[in-house]
Amino acid sequence: MGYSLKCLNCGTTYDPKEVMYTCPKCGPRLGTLEVIINEYPPHSSFDLKSKGIWAFSKFLPLDEEHYEVPLFIGNTPIYEKASLAKKMGLSDLWIKDDGRNPTGSYKDRATVMAIAKAKALNVNTIYCASTGNAASSLAGLTAASGMKSIIFVPSTAPEAKITQLLVYGAIVMAVDGTYDEAFDLSMEIGNEFGWYSRNSAINPYLLEGKKTGAMEVAVQLDFKIPDFAIVSVGDGTVVSSIYKGFYDMKMAGLIDKIPKVIGVQAEGANAVMRTFESGHFDKPIDINAHSMADSIAVGKPRDVLKACKWVKASGGYFVSVTDEEIGKAITELARETGVFGEPAGATAYAGLKKIAKTIQGKSAVVFITGNGLKDVKSARNFTGQVNHVKPNPRDVKDVLKKIGVI
Amino acid sequence: MGYSLKCLNCGTTYDPKEVMYTCPKCGPRLGTLEVIINEYPPHSSFDLKSKGIWAFSKFLPLDEEHYEVPLFIGNTPIYEKASLAKKMGLSDLWIKDDGRNPTGSYKDRATVMAIAKAKALNVNTIYCASTGNAASSLAGLTAASGMKSIIFVPSTAPEAKITQLLVYGAIVMAVDGTYDEAFDLSMEIGNEFGWYSRNSAINPYLLEGKKTGAMEVAVQLDFKIPDFAIVSVGDGTVVSSIYKGFYDMKMAGLIDKIPKVIGVQAEGANAVMRTFESGHFDKPIDINAHSMADSIAVGKPRDVLKACKWVKASGGYFVSVTDEEIGKAITELARETGVFGEPAGATAYAGLKKIAKTIQGKSAVVFITGNGLKDVKSARNFTGQVNHVKPNPRDVKDVLKKIGVI
Repeated sequence: MGYSLKCLNCGTTYDPKEVMYTCPKCGPRLGTLEVIINEYPPHSSFDLKSKGIWAFSKFLPLDEEHYEVPLFIGNTPIYEKASLAKKMGLSDLWIKDDGRNPTGSYKDRATVMAIAKAKALNVNTIYCASTGNAASSLAGLTAASGMKSIIFVPSTAPEAKITQLLVYGAIVMAVDGTYDEAFDLSMEIGNEFGWYSRNSAINPYLLEGKKTGAMEVAVQLDFKIPDFAIVSVGDGTVVSSIYKGFYDMKMAGLIDKIPKVIGVQAEGANAVMRTFESGHFDKPIDINAHSMADSIAVGKPRDVLKACKWVKASGGYFVSVTDEEIGKAITELARETGVFGEPAGATAYAGLKKIAKTIQGKSAVVFITGNGLKDVKSARNFTGQVNHVKPNPRDVKDVLKKIGVI
Repeated sequence: MGYSLKCLNCGTTYDPKEVMYTCPKCGPRLGTLEVIINEYPPHSSFDLKSKGIWAFSKFLPLDEEHYEVPLFIGNTPIYEKASLAKKMGLSDLWIKDDGRNPTGSYKDRATVMAIAKAKALNVNTIYCASTGNAASSLAGLTAASGMKSIIFVPSTAPEAKITQLLVYGAIVMAVDGTYDEAFDLSMEIGNEFGWYSRNSAINPYLLEGKKTGAMEVAVQLDFKIPDFAIVSVGDGTVVSSIYKGFYDMKMAGLIDKIPKVIGVQAEGANAVMRTFESGHFDKPIDINAHSMADSIAVGKPRDVLKACKWVKASGGYFVSVTDEEIGKAITELARETGVFGEPAGATAYAGLKKIAKTIQGKSAVVFITGNGLKDVKSARNFTGQVNHVKPNPRDVKDVLKKIGVI
């Protein structure tokens, strides 16, 4: 595919051979690059069910001959929830369950791009700074590809999340410092040794992999696009990718509208929303973030400019939800649909609940970006309790009566 | 589909309308029933990619009009691992990743059958005794189907496993007693209130759902059947179902051989293997089971007769592996293939490692029956450690040198 890279901030266009990650003039924070497709591929069908993410190869900034991670990625289920839609006053509602990817999150869509690029450059080691889904995705997919991954985490990162990395054989550097220090350190070391970077936002190709989530929705819904697309927001890359996926399909003449993209943030980590509402997208408002939804607990979002510009371009906006609302969304989503999302995944559903009254009669798709099994502990505060009984039928029946089952 | 039910022990054949679960003459332990297909469906293609498990509807003991759980189940990925096969001296090796099902395990294949049967009987509540994958599968799939689930667990069951049940809204009875007491109690209460039973082995239809795992392998490998099919064994239902899936396809004239089925047990929970090796399949040897692979830590297996008979019929056998071997298998499998299995899932891979030298030049498929995210804690003992560093490049480089990366 012919493509160029354009700085979101200053508008300079680069040949992909000229720059690797971000705009040299604007730096890594504002100078994130957009992949501009020079010529859209002619119409053809998308064999999503057989190929997963690779059904969209012609829309990805890769050589025709490129490496494909030998795990099945994408073609995640989308469920139409007519009665739930009715209950909420919507004309239709779809739940896209991206927790069904190999390492349990949306991030697998991006990691394949980093791996394809690294393979093309003959680089066998990829690094990132992350404790979350990006890291476990990198660890799992490099393992499947016979590559090395080196992952920088703040030493406060939870053991359980680190275990997944170690199982896959990643080299984990626990940095005695903040996340930002770990991030900067990873960049310095990665550059020195010529490793490939899978740091979110910095690498323009990650978003291109992520856009396949939106493109899948278009194919799965037979190119009838919902009015709203709702997704949680941390760094701002996934929400941007949702716009880009629909945008590329519209530019290719495959669909006739782009849904309004709604970014949902945790109330204690709503840096992108604050910047968006300030109107000055190039002056990011950073905060000290805190939320049970760890995957989106980002105070210094790395893709804030893109997220603000593109959500605005779609006609959408940002909302925030409390941790309490996120917790309730986990159980309600699981009980209504059978889809168990991690806190950051269910955040999108909490956002839908929040705006439902204002979008009556409209249709929406909600992206659940991570598997609930990744963080069972957080969900626990929002479930009911077990019923303790002695091993005799009378005891059980007493309880069943008390809770109204019999 | 026309079918009858036949007692594995005494051979009596029943009309499905006559009996619900087990042979009235032989009781629930030995009198497990086999579903006999009266007439195999004519050849047609299997639209696995669009329909998942329902591609095999014509092979399932259901009315033509039956309820289908609104989650995508089955069509889990199968990966050919040529270089790993070569390393082990095998002609070919496939890894079937069933952790990709909605609730993260093979058990979803069975639960759909319980739900379809309950819906046909107009019963809205399903129960089971389990702390593991059967329970979470029942909780998740009933939630998606608008039904109630009531789950009996011993009160010693780990909190994390119980959380998944509660998230889905299951009613959980924590019984102050053993697993066997919880099991018996569930049967007594379930019968009294006319709830439908999803207790493993007792219900002959569960195995029929499970057999779709084997049928999928046949379709995915274009009906070229491997020499060996390897799977872990607890109660004995899954291993039996692997045989039955291939058996039904052979009876239907779709394949020309049944692979030798190898059942892999944890050394501390090898009750089925002991019974198999005693030669007296109708005199189960029960033990006090212990293993880190909790999903197969079964001392009183409920489907022992079937497992022994059918593994023998396939020309296969049982092996056992230590917890140490299981732990190592988790990390080796993850690092070689990118598939992270729970302990009971990786047990099958440990079994392959154990027998590889005795099956040189042959081909094998290994079923990974549960997702590693279900039990991250157990895996931790078998990974390496993180590297603690100060936030400066020199510190990082010292570590990288020490571990041989640079």
